[in-house]
Amino acid sequence: MVDIKRLATVDADFTAKMDALLAFEAAQDEGIERTVIGILADVKARGDAAVVEYSNQFDRLTAGSMADLELSKAEMQRALDGLPVAQRQALEAAAQRVRVYHEKQRLEGWSYTEADGTMLGQMITPLDRVGLYVPGGKAAYPSSVLMNAIPAKVAGVKELIMVVPTPGGEHNALVLAAACLAGVDRVFTIGGAQAVGALAYGTQTVPQVDKIVGPGNAYVACAKRRVFGIVGIDMVAGPSEILVVTDGSGDPDWVAMDLFSQAEHDELAQSILICTDAAYIERVQASIEKLLPTMPRREVIETSLRNRGAFILVRDMEEAVAIANRVAPEHLELALADPDPWVAKIHHAGAIFIGHYTSESLGDYCAGPNHVLPTSGSARFSSPLGVYDFQKRTSLIKVSKAGAQTLGKIASTLAHGEGLPAHAKSAEFRLEN
Amino acid sequence: MVDIKRLATVDADFTAKMDALLAFEAAQDEGIERTVIGILADVKARGDAAVVEYSNQFDRLTAGSMADLELSKAEMQRALDGLPVAQRQALEAAAQRVRVYHEKQRLEGWSYTEADGTMLGQMITPLDRVGLYVPGGKAAYPSSVLMNAIPAKVAGVKELIMVVPTPGGEHNALVLAAACLAGVDRVFTIGGAQAVGALAYGTQTVPQVDKIVGPGNAYVACAKRRVFGIVGIDMVAGPSEILVVTDGSGDPDWVAMDLFSQAEHDELAQSILICTDAAYIERVQASIEKLLPTMPRREVIETSLRNRGAFILVRDMEEAVAIANRVAPEHLELALADPDPWVAKIHHAGAIFIGHYTSESLGDYCAGPNHVLPTSGSARFSSPLGVYDFQKRTSLIKVSKAGAQTLGKIASTLAHGEGLPAHAKSAEFRLEN
Repeated sequence: MVDIKRLATVDADFTAKMDALLAFEAAQDEGIERTVIGILADVKARGDAAVVEYSNQFDRLTAGSMADLELSKAEMQRALDGLPVAQRQALEAAAQRVRVYHEKQRLEGWSYTEADGTMLGQMITPLDRVGLYVPGGKAAYPSSVLMNAIPAKVAGVKELIMVVPTPGGEHNALVLAAACLAGVDRVFTIGGAQAVGALAYGTQTVPQVDKIVGPGNAYVACAKRRVFGIVGIDMVAGPSEILVVTDGSGDPDWVAMDLFSQAEHDELAQSILICTDAAYIERVQASIEKLLPTMPRREVIETSLRNRGAFILVRDMEEAVAIANRVAPEHLELALADPDPWVAKIHHAGAIFIGHYTSESLGDYCAGPNHVLPTSGSARFSSPLGVYDFQKRTSLIKVSKAGAQTLGKIASTLAHGEGLPAHAKSAEFRLEN
Repeated sequence: MVDIKRLATVDADFTAKMDALLAFEAAQDEGIERTVIGILADVKARGDAAVVEYSNQFDRLTAGSMADLELSKAEMQRALDGLPVAQRQALEAAAQRVRVYHEKQRLEGWSYTEADGTMLGQMITPLDRVGLYVPGGKAAYPSSVLMNAIPAKVAGVKELIMVVPTPGGEHNALVLAAACLAGVDRVFTIGGAQAVGALAYGTQTVPQVDKIVGPGNAYVACAKRRVFGIVGIDMVAGPSEILVVTDGSGDPDWVAMDLFSQAEHDELAQSILICTDAAYIERVQASIEKLLPTMPRREVIETSLRNRGAFILVRDMEEAVAIANRVAPEHLELALADPDPWVAKIHHAGAIFIGHYTSESLGDYCAGPNHVLPTSGSARFSSPLGVYDFQKRTSLIKVSKAGAQTLGKIASTLAHGEGLPAHAKSAEFRLEN
């Protein structure tokens, strides 16, 4: 039997058990940090030459120059053209739906004029150039390329530069096809801290970007954190999580498989079920026993469920919602007979999958919303990746002569209070007498 | 004569000179980093006791417990009541204008339903609890309290916790008055990395927050960077900058004083003038010579102008705009006879001050937009602090039974392509076949 932790809100030590269940802090490894600091400094100083050396060393390549590490548009197009029809159609359908949803996220500027003629407003502009990090190896997901690249393009980013390591020189055709479909402008086959450094500082060949997005390993995460400020970065993602809230009304096989779909990502992924019905928890456990042997990735799933999974029995839906808000999960499934009244009571979640037919996997690939979501409780303070991450705001202030009279007096008083006389004088110069 | 660098776009080495002028990267000092790591770990482990010890040590206090380091609402109210009438009125007028502007920034949710009944949307929720760092000593600005606290409150943040160090036990009445006016809920007189740690991890007395905003010294900046991920943070601010673009149409005294108002902040602040008219640059230089001796903070101003200031002569406004976009300044003044046509050509700036009557200082205090703006060129990828920094988005997905048929097939194909069979199965379970 797959041994999954059982918690219940009636337990005296429930809060402590929840804290232990959720405890996860990404280690900030000193060795990794030192390595990354060295690589970043080297790439900053020597540019292309350093990037080529590290790529040859870490990815076992034999590149003579950066030119050998850039893929042409023709190669990307070939990858797309070479896909089986069903895959290509699925990728195109997903891209189209993601685009339609994200177009609704575009920010628009606004302004207003006051009675004395003073105008105030906010202007929206896209980022000029964005770097998209795509991991090599097993975590290279074409769907992630779509989810990162499409919002940037919808925002109006002029140049989108993808970096993807190719250990041993192996290319992932699906990833390149997705990049082609999403309108990625240039692709370099580089990875690790050296790729982050190249994008952040620019080299002779790799143009400096304004923001770096996309997931990566501990070296990449550390490098992104270090270059934050020189360029923008997205959230540093932790392991993926799902929280399924159910009232026992659905098919337990569906619930079991939804828990598996999170657990199969990796051993650190977290799948939690909250249920108002003790008997239903047993049915889900039975479904797990039945279905697990059929899963190709059963070992990863089982390790994840054993180490980080949990079944939580609650007295009622109010308790379920309170726990969901405490967890602030990346993915929240409301697998309820009547889910709608509960949606507005959720204050913290990356995405809410409402009703029995909304499996998380539909959202991962093609429902439309982004699958890059805040992990490890960071939905308390952050949002899904979106078009707004590739746009920025500029405040607009146009003070009329009349407005300068009113505002000048206020500014002068406050500036003197702060001991900033030039600020005061600058306002006073605009006063009429 | 105040020796200010002269650049001209006609110079052969103009680009290199511009790069040198703008070169500024906040040092990531290893000693500071080690100290901060130690303090954060200690505060995480020992909570209140550690915070009290560090506060007593660094701020020369004699607190017996955290209770001694919390200010009551009555103390804040007393600070507000004790202000001179003119100061109180100015502060209230500024707060009111800032509130009105920021109310326009509030994000609203949306949703749409597709033909097959599938609903997609985006829900907006405020952060629960926010920490506001306010520096002690000379950089303690009541206007900054308003600019950080009001957007949080407009967003609907339930609890706003301010930390402000009081070296030697000295309180800043204007800062406390501003906090009272802005609706800050609790105030602790703690600072440094220990305050950041207390807010990020929570202690027995200080509640854990979801995001920390506000400026601080190198220790505070380093600590914020380290706790990023556990909580959200705002941008790590660099020195303040102003870029004035002029066509020679305005009063050179006004321009000189606007340059001073930036330079008086500190020696690292940067004031740059771009002008299409060589003769006008000489008039501004003359104004500087005339006005500088009258300024109480003339030494700071002169050092800043000498070391980091510049006059840049351009051939035309197109060049001026190109340089402004290259600099991506925190503050951009368009001191032009006819500024409006140029606003939309600016792609990167924190705030644009349009026309001769709009001195930066009016925006700093009371025009309405936020004065917390992206520095050091980070306007390339980030925005003024705003209500949106205290709200977050949750994706909503409700797939109908019919929708699950269409989406399920797409998701299944892509999941198999990515080698994630449980994802595929979870979608396939919802197919009717």
